[in-house]
Amino acid sequence: MRIAVLGGDGFVGWPTALHLSNLGHEVHIVDNLSRRWIDTELGVQSLTPMDSIQERCRIWHQETGRKIHFHLLNLATEYERLKSWLADERPEAVIHFAEQRAAPYSMKTDRHKVYTVNNNTNATHNLLAALVETGIDAHLIHLGTMGVYGYSSVGAPIPEGYLDVEIDTPTGKKAQQILYPTRPGSVYHMTKSLDQILFQFYAQNDGLRITDLHQGIVWGTHTDQTRRHEQLINRFDYDGDYGTVLNRFLIQAAIGYPLTVHGTGGQTRAFIHVQDSVRCIELALQDAPEAGDRVRIFNQMTETHRVRDLAEMIAKLTGAEVAYLPNPRKEADENDLIVKNDQFIALGLKPITLAEGLLSEVVDVAKKYAHRIDRSRVPAVSAWTKDIAKRVEHDPEGKRLRSVS
Amino acid sequence: MRIAVLGGDGFVGWPTALHLSNLGHEVHIVDNLSRRWIDTELGVQSLTPMDSIQERCRIWHQETGRKIHFHLLNLATEYERLKSWLADERPEAVIHFAEQRAAPYSMKTDRHKVYTVNNNTNATHNLLAALVETGIDAHLIHLGTMGVYGYSSVGAPIPEGYLDVEIDTPTGKKAQQILYPTRPGSVYHMTKSLDQILFQFYAQNDGLRITDLHQGIVWGTHTDQTRRHEQLINRFDYDGDYGTVLNRFLIQAAIGYPLTVHGTGGQTRAFIHVQDSVRCIELALQDAPEAGDRVRIFNQMTETHRVRDLAEMIAKLTGAEVAYLPNPRKEADENDLIVKNDQFIALGLKPITLAEGLLSEVVDVAKKYAHRIDRSRVPAVSAWTKDIAKRVEHDPEGKRLRSVS
Ligand SMILES: NC(=O)c1ccc[n+]([C@@H]2O[C@H](COP(=O)([O-])OP(=O)(O)OC[C@H]3O[C@@H](n4cnc5c(N)ncnc54)[C@H](O)[C@@H]3O)[C@@H](O)[C@H]2O)c1
Ligand SMILES: NC(=O)c1ccc[n+]([C@@H]2O[C@H](COP(=O)([O-])OP(=O)(O)OC[C@H]3O[C@@H](n4cnc5c(N)ncnc54)[C@H](O)[C@@H]3O)[C@@H](O)[C@H]2O)c1
Repeated sequence: MRIAVLGGDGFVGWPTALHLSNLGHEVHIVDNLSRRWIDTELGVQSLTPMDSIQERCRIWHQETGRKIHFHLLNLATEYERLKSWLADERPEAVIHFAEQRAAPYSMKTDRHKVYTVNNNTNATHNLLAALVETGIDAHLIHLGTMGVYGYSSVGAPIPEGYLDVEIDTPTGKKAQQILYPTRPGSVYHMTKSLDQILFQFYAQNDGLRITDLHQGIVWGTHTDQTRRHEQLINRFDYDGDYGTVLNRFLIQAAIGYPLTVHGTGGQTRAFIHVQDSVRCIELALQDAPEAGDRVRIFNQMTETHRVRDLAEMIAKLTGAEVAYLPNPRKEADENDLIVKNDQFIALGLKPITLAEGLLSEVVDVAKKYAHRIDRSRVPAVSAWTKDIAKRVEHDPEGKRLRSVS
Repeated sequence: MRIAVLGGDGFVGWPTALHLSNLGHEVHIVDNLSRRWIDTELGVQSLTPMDSIQERCRIWHQETGRKIHFHLLNLATEYERLKSWLADERPEAVIHFAEQRAAPYSMKTDRHKVYTVNNNTNATHNLLAALVETGIDAHLIHLGTMGVYGYSSVGAPIPEGYLDVEIDTPTGKKAQQILYPTRPGSVYHMTKSLDQILFQFYAQNDGLRITDLHQGIVWGTHTDQTRRHEQLINRFDYDGDYGTVLNRFLIQAAIGYPLTVHGTGGQTRAFIHVQDSVRCIELALQDAPEAGDRVRIFNQMTETHRVRDLAEMIAKLTGAEVAYLPNPRKEADENDLIVKNDQFIALGLKPITLAEGLLSEVVDVAKKYAHRIDRSRVPAVSAWTKDIAKRVEHDPEGKRLRSVS
């Protein structure tokens, strides 16, 4: 199949491109490399030494004889180029990773809020409008997040996208299925909630065939394909903005930095290993909706954990200290989370769990590159509101920790 | 009160600015005049001869001694200027009309879709981010539309914004109120559905105080204030993109053009006279939410009518012919519509209805300026999908009608 991987230079996009290329697909990466520019803006870098995308593609070709094509294009600002590119390449499937994806980055300052909404909404909408305009009947797979539901404390299991409701009508109650209501907790999560409305409209009005994968927090760094050559190594973020909770703990453990738990650590989150993430995309590709179908929504995760339990588990594994810090986010202190993932299991996913030895692989990778870490960039500093910013700033525990670095 | 009227050069914004200025408020219009540029793009003009905004403000001052300030600013693209403007003027209330508001225009071509999403989403989001950043605790009143609910055929009364649902949890069913699910029928309506998510987030995260008015189709042209001087006259759109159904029928009747009903005319829509529209905004201003409140959502309409009934009523009143044309929109042929407007009635709104003689006032205005009409711009030509475009193009009834012009 001819597959476009939008955002294919990123943390999940790159291993996905390799995985699909390895399966024999013709893979085209489209990326504006904005994520590399953000590293420059923040003065951080991937823990792993990441080559240019062109060099990575060259190595892949050298190792496997397979070609991955790269196209430099900004989905959000270059609508006309996007349209001609689609018209020329006519992909049969489009996998859309190309959004600003860090919640803390999206809450950093007003400029970052504005950038995130502008970039993500226009990237997704431009893509939809261009697919309709070029008449390309590709299966569009988008990466969303369960975070759109806001981890409220209702304790209801997160279903796969839809909710049964009964609506009062003059002739009695009528059953309907609606998009499960969202309550995003950051500007980033909000953009994923906006995306859902865009997808619903274009599936309904134009018959676009769309699968939206509500992904948990991705952990790990290697997949079978990134392991093949040192220069195929994946991006690995550790900083307070882009590093995500489980990977951050593993890196912190590797460099002898206390594991930074926010608040009570009572937040429960869903996780998936990067190898399962790329496998899920392969499975979703095999199961395309028909024109006229509603948007297909899958939860892409394999297990849930409470943040403090994760910290304790990794502390036990590695001997690291755990530090409880004031929470820069506005969120519930404690929440339960039950997530259904029946659809991927039915399609044949065999989940990789935290128990399977891959935790130490991540610690090993982190140790190998520990000399590349700027410890001052480890703490998460983006505060969700101006009030929280003041509280976090004045906290003595936080001061103590900031002096660790 | 110091009030910013964003989009105050438009059809509803201008009479609102006059109404509020007349009540003694200090009114600041912010507008990028994009609507005038769109007239130029489409090669159409307001039926009524509309002076420049600066000239209109000068006349208002001359007639009343009151000042309305005008600021040329693009909310969607000039975030930094917007922020400094807010920081300088510190409005106590902000009324946000500044969006691209025609469904047919939003569906014209892919370029128009992209423009509408980009303009409307960024305008609203920039405003929200700038309010948070400047710490201005203004009451934000936004103009939304009932069209976000998509006029589905469930026949349920449209409530004021929220829906009671029961969610299954491990410990039994839990009652919740959620945003009433949307199913927008055009790109324009979709942007209003996106706005709702933006408002929900900023009310919850930052305590912004927001009222979202889900307005019906506005009809009429004069208000008490626009009647005061020929040069205060309101914009009056008749073309197939910006002209809205009831006003279009009245204009068509005035110039002896058949009343153009799409499909069976079985669509039921909600209406409000422009005088009531400005009155509702006055009422909403008096009833501001507190910080921490959820977004207040009012239905701003006074009556509902089936399109073909409206056409027959106006045909009877004026002797006009009714023409049934193929529908360029993708929508249900027939729908019922029951809308609750209890909140505005409770606040003291006394609805002006179609029965009250104002229909003929509109016909009189239309007759007076009939010489300014380009009859070829009367038909609605924007088709919702490429398939519909083909069908509409080949329809013999449509051909006949196009030859009328
Ligand atoms: N990493 C996770 O834990 C996780 C969890 C849930 C969902 N997701 C989603 O999966 C997707 C990929 O995540 P990731 O961790 O690989 O993110 P990433 O930031 O590493 O990769 C995103 C890529 O998209 C590119 N991009 C961004 N905006 C673009 C634009 N306008 N035009 C072209 N390219 C653009 C960036 O340059 C980057 O290479 C995102 O949409 C994210 O929201 C990720
Ligand atoms: N007219 C109706 O029947 C109706 C019905 C329901 C809701 N509404 C809503 O009420 C509001 C006003 O409607 P209207 O009929 O007066 O529309 P209009 O097009 O006449 O006025 C909108 C004004 O906003 C300005 N504007 C647009 N984008 C802007 C930007 N980025 N920066 C600054 N100014 C910008 C335009 O120049 C224009 O003057 C709209 O939001 C519309 O969706 C209107």
